[in-house]
Amino acid sequence: MATESFKEKIKGVGGNASYEAKARIFREQLEAKIPASLRLPPALLEDPPLNVTHIPETCGLLTPQELAITELDATAVCQKIAGGELTAVEAVTAFGKRAAIAHQLTACLMDFFLDEGIKQAQQLDEYFRNEGKVIGPLHGLPISIKGMLPINGTVGSAGFLATIETSTEDCDMIRILRSLGAVFYVKTNQPQSLMHLESKSTYGRVLNPHNTNLTAGGSSGGESALVAMKGSCIGVGTDGGGSIRCPCAHCGIYGFRPSCRTTPLHGVLWYQPGQDGFYSSAGPMCRSARDMRLFLEAVLGANPALLDPDAFPIPLQVPDLSKRKLRVGIMMHDGVVMPHPPMIRALKMAKAKLEASSEVEVVDYTTYDHDRGYSIVREIYYEDGGATVRRILTESGEEMLPLTEWVISPPHVRDHDATQVWKLRDKRDAFRREYSDHWWSQNVDVVLCPPFPGTASRHDTAKYWGYTAIWNLLDYPGTVFPSGFVADPTIDVYQESLSPASAADEYNISLYEPAIFKGAPVSLQIVSRIFNDGLVLAAQEVIERILKS
Amino acid sequence: MATESFKEKIKGVGGNASYEAKARIFREQLEAKIPASLRLPPALLEDPPLNVTHIPETCGLLTPQELAITELDATAVCQKIAGGELTAVEAVTAFGKRAAIAHQLTACLMDFFLDEGIKQAQQLDEYFRNEGKVIGPLHGLPISIKGMLPINGTVGSAGFLATIETSTEDCDMIRILRSLGAVFYVKTNQPQSLMHLESKSTYGRVLNPHNTNLTAGGSSGGESALVAMKGSCIGVGTDGGGSIRCPCAHCGIYGFRPSCRTTPLHGVLWYQPGQDGFYSSAGPMCRSARDMRLFLEAVLGANPALLDPDAFPIPLQVPDLSKRKLRVGIMMHDGVVMPHPPMIRALKMAKAKLEASSEVEVVDYTTYDHDRGYSIVREIYYEDGGATVRRILTESGEEMLPLTEWVISPPHVRDHDATQVWKLRDKRDAFRREYSDHWWSQNVDVVLCPPFPGTASRHDTAKYWGYTAIWNLLDYPGTVFPSGFVADPTIDVYQESLSPASAADEYNISLYEPAIFKGAPVSLQIVSRIFNDGLVLAAQEVIERILKS
Repeated sequence: MATESFKEKIKGVGGNASYEAKARIFREQLEAKIPASLRLPPALLEDPPLNVTHIPETCGLLTPQELAITELDATAVCQKIAGGELTAVEAVTAFGKRAAIAHQLTACLMDFFLDEGIKQAQQLDEYFRNEGKVIGPLHGLPISIKGMLPINGTVGSAGFLATIETSTEDCDMIRILRSLGAVFYVKTNQPQSLMHLESKSTYGRVLNPHNTNLTAGGSSGGESALVAMKGSCIGVGTDGGGSIRCPCAHCGIYGFRPSCRTTPLHGVLWYQPGQDGFYSSAGPMCRSARDMRLFLEAVLGANPALLDPDAFPIPLQVPDLSKRKLRVGIMMHDGVVMPHPPMIRALKMAKAKLEASSEVEVVDYTTYDHDRGYSIVREIYYEDGGATVRRILTESGEEMLPLTEWVISPPHVRDHDATQVWKLRDKRDAFRREYSDHWWSQNVDVVLCPPFPGTASRHDTAKYWGYTAIWNLLDYPGTVFPSGFVADPTIDVYQESLSPASAADEYNISLYEPAIFKGAPVSLQIVSRIFNDGLVLAAQEVIERILKS
Repeated sequence: MATESFKEKIKGVGGNASYEAKARIFREQLEAKIPASLRLPPALLEDPPLNVTHIPETCGLLTPQELAITELDATAVCQKIAGGELTAVEAVTAFGKRAAIAHQLTACLMDFFLDEGIKQAQQLDEYFRNEGKVIGPLHGLPISIKGMLPINGTVGSAGFLATIETSTEDCDMIRILRSLGAVFYVKTNQPQSLMHLESKSTYGRVLNPHNTNLTAGGSSGGESALVAMKGSCIGVGTDGGGSIRCPCAHCGIYGFRPSCRTTPLHGVLWYQPGQDGFYSSAGPMCRSARDMRLFLEAVLGANPALLDPDAFPIPLQVPDLSKRKLRVGIMMHDGVVMPHPPMIRALKMAKAKLEASSEVEVVDYTTYDHDRGYSIVREIYYEDGGATVRRILTESGEEMLPLTEWVISPPHVRDHDATQVWKLRDKRDAFRREYSDHWWSQNVDVVLCPPFPGTASRHDTAKYWGYTAIWNLLDYPGTVFPSGFVADPTIDVYQESLSPASAADEYNISLYEPAIFKGAPVSLQIVSRIFNDGLVLAAQEVIERILKS
């Protein structure tokens, strides 16, 4: 690892000769789209620093105005455009240029089409000039989009080379965002299989901008790296096991996983179509809490259920928490895998601050059989025993990554017939019911918990999804946000000798070496019971304010 | 048929010696619960008239006061109890006594526990006397309950002898109704497998009170027969393929199938637990349109989603249609099976009346590939190829009824592995999406259509579910209500020689002999797009008023 070159670190998934021939074409097509004027010096790319977040500011490829624009969050961008202080063209140009730089340092993109974005922006600017008003609440906002969400005319995929396509239609999410005034300019990278909490694909391995020896998380890891690099102020990810929350946590940004089927998902690329044992959910990844709300209010306000008979017309209700005491359960761990020291430090800080506040009531949250829930959801992910994944890889000669092998292998995963599928889903439903009863017994509004057993992990090691996937099984909406802490090797050390709580815990303990994680953001997660999306939004604002006061 | 004795007609499912021994016990337990004071004369039961609806009034077992109470609809019962004009004990006693009579003529019950109901009612009356107010919107209302919905301490089943139980817990629906003040006194009969549009079980074959040579429909056929006999003013059924709408239509009462998972379903007995390819939906079966609304407003007002994480907190919104013109699509047939003459007559009457009204705009509704949709839903019902049904029957020695054999047999039904389950569900989702696009292209608020290809069918012949099951696949909420017409052999004859539209149509044509259906109620169905439950309720009121003006 220490001697691995940057080029080696960032490179994509390999395969047999036939695969490599196709992969080369896809990679060259992407590289050709990055203009020469936005290329970083080869010397820099030979051996960049581990923390690459400041390179866009120092490389000299962006003007001061462009740098200033890319510091804005989405709400500010929308406000400035609506106020006539900024044009849509200026916004997408600044973020687009910065995205090109970000990509060279983190492999965060799978398509780049700034020219298209500028054309859209020109039309919006013209509309604004002629009509004197915005076309919708996201007028002129550049939004980056995860690879699996098709935008007409751009590259998308379901996580394998064999599924790479130039899309011929917008998915519902894009149709809606477009109607609200959004501008598109990049598609972002994601992992083989879409089912890793890391992001290595044909297009490269996405690196964490804060420390390129660590993953940016996954599966929406291209998004998180891009947003952390400020190559986007807001992006759209999807989350079926942690794929919004994990990468946001790892990159120190904000992310929200809505209750399933409230935000539009129709038309998203997936290699197990009809697999309805679990759903993923599309949501925002961004740099401020208010941007999550901006996104959700705009998208849900467009009533996705009118397009999609499988979406639920459940209104977003954000309660006013100033009139009552918020009850916050604190879950220090899930009883299966113990968090690493930096996460423990952040949780203790949070608990102390919340206990000292008169605005909230703190409850020690008792978990309910998370190990069982995690086993159920792992089994549901691949009811065919992973046969579809193996077939796709074999047919195209794409090598199977270790994390893909891991996610489709026993003991969690096995083949099912129809009766076994039903039995499995019955176990799921029973767990959900039991957990709901348990939730009410705890008398909490929300639970504050780790989003992951630690900070961003080293590449190819992210094998415990329990802190996010349990909430997917339950479909409890959740948000992650930066605690304000980063991992500090001088204080984040194990205080005592450890007896592992489980095999997964033993593995997790083995991964921790303080020096490796230096500077990695430590993030926290807030969840609430299914469909309490508005409560999660409101609680996050209160909790973050207290934590950072 | 002509010479079949009444005893023969009403008798239950048979089986081998071991089955018969158990069946006898269950039947005797039920019979023993009907008090001697409520038994009809054996001579009457030897050869009752085909239309038995008037026997409760003429048999002399009910007082004039009891007869008057049983004429009330649920709304009136609630109002009178809340107004102090009627006690809960009087209400449940009257309906309970009439239910006992109804059962002897139609085999509509699987459990009878009037004494328990009276005890509940006494407590409610005491509460009312002491507190001077009702406990909830359904205070004192006797509600009959379909067999598959467990009430603690009463008999329930999932449609086979092997699944008969004395329940030890209330299901969610019962918990909620109980909290709203409802009183329980009977569980109603349902068919083997729960998947017939008729209702013959171990406990007997449910007969249509208007004509006992016809079925009361199914699978909530015990409910429809009981409500039509006025042994209940309102009952709860479930509908996964037509099981509320078909029996209500056949018995000339009102029924509503809500969008799935809005009304509580948790805890209902089912022999394919975890089979989540389709859901059934629980709803009211009653004698007035306003009672459907009473029920839905009360149940949804109790927020079932707080108990059940699999229920959707989608509020019931009943629009005010006085301010706009309702757009009613008329679907004369589904392109697959043509309705019998009485149904055609009712549809033509409805169309003419609606066209003449200034309140609505009539549109000729174009169907969209109902044959494909029907094939998909038939395949989804038994993804295991019917293996579970065969196993249950074999293990208990229960004979397989012809309609059970039919519903689990090829070509529609076959075994699936996990990948095939996904493919099937993907076909389902694609159809739902296409249909949604089609629906919007039609620019209608609701569609008026047949609920069945004719009136109630003769026993063992109900083999086309397309007019209801298509809406289950789409999850479009629907209601049925009596057109005011009954089949009239003197006018309901085929006007021309027919060329069948399909094999199913050929079979359906073969079933029609005008004389057989004489006096059978002709009902109509109104549906709207998923989650438009409130619109269906509002539209039904407008349409029925116009049709009956």
